[in-house]
Amino acid sequence: MAMAATSSQSFLKNPNFSIRPKNPILTQQTGLSINASRPKKPTSITCTATTHENPTTNKPQSQDRVFNFAAGPATLYERVLKKAESELVNWRGSGMSVMEMSHRGKEFLSIIQKAEADLRTLLDIPSNYSVLFLQGGATTQFAAIPLNLCKPNDPVDYLVTGSWGDKAFKEAQKFCKPNVIWSGKSEKYTKIPNFDSLEQNPDARFLHICANETIHGVEFKDYPDPRNKDKILVADMSSNFCSKPVDVSKFGVIYAGAQKNVGPAGVAIVIIRKDLIGNAQEITPVMLDYKIHDENNSLYNTPPCFGIYMCGLVFEDLLEQGGLKEVEKKNIKKADLLYKVIDESNGFYRCPVEKSVRSIMNIPFTLEKSELEAEFIKEAAKEKMVQLKGHRSVGGMRASIYNAMPLAGVEKLWRLLSKQGY
Amino acid sequence: MAMAATSSQSFLKNPNFSIRPKNPILTQQTGLSINASRPKKPTSITCTATTHENPTTNKPQSQDRVFNFAAGPATLYERVLKKAESELVNWRGSGMSVMEMSHRGKEFLSIIQKAEADLRTLLDIPSNYSVLFLQGGATTQFAAIPLNLCKPNDPVDYLVTGSWGDKAFKEAQKFCKPNVIWSGKSEKYTKIPNFDSLEQNPDARFLHICANETIHGVEFKDYPDPRNKDKILVADMSSNFCSKPVDVSKFGVIYAGAQKNVGPAGVAIVIIRKDLIGNAQEITPVMLDYKIHDENNSLYNTPPCFGIYMCGLVFEDLLEQGGLKEVEKKNIKKADLLYKVIDESNGFYRCPVEKSVRSIMNIPFTLEKSELEAEFIKEAAKEKMVQLKGHRSVGGMRASIYNAMPLAGVEKLWRLLSKQGY
Repeated sequence: MAMAATSSQSFLKNPNFSIRPKNPILTQQTGLSINASRPKKPTSITCTATTHENPTTNKPQSQDRVFNFAAGPATLYERVLKKAESELVNWRGSGMSVMEMSHRGKEFLSIIQKAEADLRTLLDIPSNYSVLFLQGGATTQFAAIPLNLCKPNDPVDYLVTGSWGDKAFKEAQKFCKPNVIWSGKSEKYTKIPNFDSLEQNPDARFLHICANETIHGVEFKDYPDPRNKDKILVADMSSNFCSKPVDVSKFGVIYAGAQKNVGPAGVAIVIIRKDLIGNAQEITPVMLDYKIHDENNSLYNTPPCFGIYMCGLVFEDLLEQGGLKEVEKKNIKKADLLYKVIDESNGFYRCPVEKSVRSIMNIPFTLEKSELEAEFIKEAAKEKMVQLKGHRSVGGMRASIYNAMPLAGVEKLWRLLSKQGY
Repeated sequence: MAMAATSSQSFLKNPNFSIRPKNPILTQQTGLSINASRPKKPTSITCTATTHENPTTNKPQSQDRVFNFAAGPATLYERVLKKAESELVNWRGSGMSVMEMSHRGKEFLSIIQKAEADLRTLLDIPSNYSVLFLQGGATTQFAAIPLNLCKPNDPVDYLVTGSWGDKAFKEAQKFCKPNVIWSGKSEKYTKIPNFDSLEQNPDARFLHICANETIHGVEFKDYPDPRNKDKILVADMSSNFCSKPVDVSKFGVIYAGAQKNVGPAGVAIVIIRKDLIGNAQEITPVMLDYKIHDENNSLYNTPPCFGIYMCGLVFEDLLEQGGLKEVEKKNIKKADLLYKVIDESNGFYRCPVEKSVRSIMNIPFTLEKSELEAEFIKEAAKEKMVQLKGHRSVGGMRASIYNAMPLAGVEKLWRLLSKQGY
C-alpha cells in the first residue's frame, strides 16, 4: 500500500526530528527487529522546552491536579475550569447559574451567540456554512449524516482508517448504500492510503472520513478531493477539532463531539454547508434533522446549555492564545517530544502508526516487554499522570494530548518514558 | 366533556381551599363574568408559611440570587450548585473535574451508579425496570418510543392534553400509526378527560400521555388504565419528574428531560420495563436504541457526564429531604398558595385550567387587564423574580415552581400577586 502524499506532516516540520525513512513500512519492520535489543541505560534525549500553561500569566497547573491523558472526556484548561467555578452559582450578576437559565432568555442567547461567533473566527467558517450545537455525540451524527444527505438508495463512499470510521460506515448501512472504498483494518489501522489510488464512486453522494482516529492514533494531514458528482467531503473531526486550522470550505459537513478539545461531553458540533440542509429522509427523527436545528439556531428544543457555555469559554481561550495556528504549534511540539522518545528508544517503546500520518492528539504505543506496561501505568499514576492505558480494543498505552494538556504534562511523561525503568 | 375522577387532587387536600365548584366549566364562565369588577384594594389572604430552604440548615437563598420561575432549564437548589462549585475543578481529590473524567474510569462509574441507585430509591423503581441516562431531551424520545416499541404499522393511542403530547403524537407518525383518542385543543388544553370515556384501541401497542403539560399547566393526578392488548402505558414526565411519588409499575416507559426538576439540560432519563427492550425497528439510529444503552449501562458512547453528576447531586438532596412524599407536600403547599391568590382575586387574575387537573409545577395565569401584564413582569423583575412571562404560544404569565423553587420565592410572588397594583 502506497503512503499518502501529505502537505502538512507535523513531524517533518520539526527541525529536531531527523529520522525520516524513505519507506516507512520497511522502517517499521526494521523497528520491530531492533526491538530485540533493549538498552539498559536511559536514552540521552534532552528536553529544553519551557512550560507555557497560560497565555497571559504562565501560571503552572495547581499541585493538586493530575495530568489526565484520557482520550475523552479529557483534560480541560484549568483556567477555564476556574472561570466556570467563579461564575457557577451566579453567572455575571444574573443571579443564576448557566445551568438554570432559560435557553430563550437574553443571558443564554448571548452565550450561544458568542460561542458560535468565536468558533466562526477560530475556524474562519465561511458564511454559507451553518454551525449547529447538538446532542448525542458524533455517534448520533453517524445516522444524521446519511439521513440528511441521502436518499435510501444513494451510494456513499467511506474511507475507513480506524474504529470510528468503521462505526460510521456501519450505522450508515441503515439509511443509504455505503461502500468502504479503503480500509486499514488488515494493517491494524496504522495507515492512510494514497489518495490517488482511491477508487471513488462518481455516483456516491459523499465521501466520508474520520479525520483523526482516537483509538488508533491515525490522523489525516491533508484531505482527499471528493470525486463524487456533488464533490461532498464529510469528516468526523471529534478528536482533532480545533487542534489546528482547517479549510472548512473543502468540506460539505464537519462534525465533532466536544469532549476532546473544546468542552465537556454532551455537545456535538456540526458545521454544514447550507445548501446541504433541507432534504432529510421522511424517517428522520426531528432531533436529527439539520433543517429544524438550522432554522431554530440550535434552539428548537432545550440545548445542552452548560456544555455550550463551557465550549464558549474554551473558544475564547483559544482565541486569546492567538488562534488555531498557535494552538497547532504547541500541539506539534508536544507530540514531537513523545514520538521522538518513542522512536529513539531502540524499540523499548513502539508506536505502530506510519510516521507521516501519526496523530498529534492521540499517541498509542506499546512496550517491547508488554509485562512492563502495568508497571509503567502504575509508575505514571504515582507521578499523577493518569489514563494512559490504551483502548480496550487495542491494548498497550495511549497518551491523549489534546489542546488543554499542558506542555508540563507532556514533559513529565517524556521524563518517565526516558527513564525506561519501572 | 366530563371531568376525570382523580384520586389525588392536590387542591382538595388543602383544608384552607374552600371554593370547589360542582361544575368547574360553569365556574370558569362565572369567573369570566366576575372579572368585570376589579377590586381596588388588596385581597385579605394571609400567609403564615415559613421558609424551608435547606433540609438541614434552613439557610435562606443568597441575596444576590434571583427567584427564577423559568419553565426549564429551571432553578436548581442553591446548596446543590454550591456543592458542584466546591468540587468543580477537583472532584473529591481525584485531581480533575467531573467534566474531564473518562466515562469508563472508576470515578465516573461511581457517580453514575450512585445516581441510578438513588433514583431507584426515590421512585421505588422495580428491578424489572432499566434506568437509562441519555441525550437529546424528551423530544428525541418522541421518536425513540415508537421506534423501540412498535412495528411501522402498529396502531398507537395518544391522549393529547397539551403542546407536548401533540408534538409526541406528530413525531410518532413517522414510525407507527398513532391515533389521537382525545385532544384538549378545542378547549385550549385546560382539561383532562374522564378516563372511562376514552375509546382506547384494543390493538394499540401503547397508550401515550404527557403527565404534566409544561406550557398549559395541566397535570394528570391519576393515570388511565391502558386497555390495549399489552397493557402498556407510556408517559412523558419531563416537567413533573420526581416532584411526587409515582407507581412506576403502572408504566411501560416513563421518560423525562432533566432540566425541570432534577438537573441541567442535556440529560434525558428513561425508565423502561425490561421486556419492552430489544425490538427496535431496523431504521432506529443506534443512539435511539434502548437495547444498546441498556446493555452498556448508558455508556455505549460518551454520556453527558457532568449533567448526570448534577442529577445525582439533586437525587441525593431529594433523599435527604425525606424522599418524594416530603417533596410533594412542599410542592402542593407552594402551588396552593398561588392558586388561592389567583382564585380569590375576583377575576383580577385568572388561571384557565380546570381545578382538578391544575399542575403543581407550572401555573399559567392571565390578568383581567392584559395591558397590566407587562407592568406585572417589570415589577416582579424589580423584586428579583424573573421568567414569569407565559410561553410564546399562549401568552399571559406562567410561574414554574419546580422542586427547587424555594417557598420564599413563592411567598414573594404571592405578596406581589396580593398587591394587585403595578
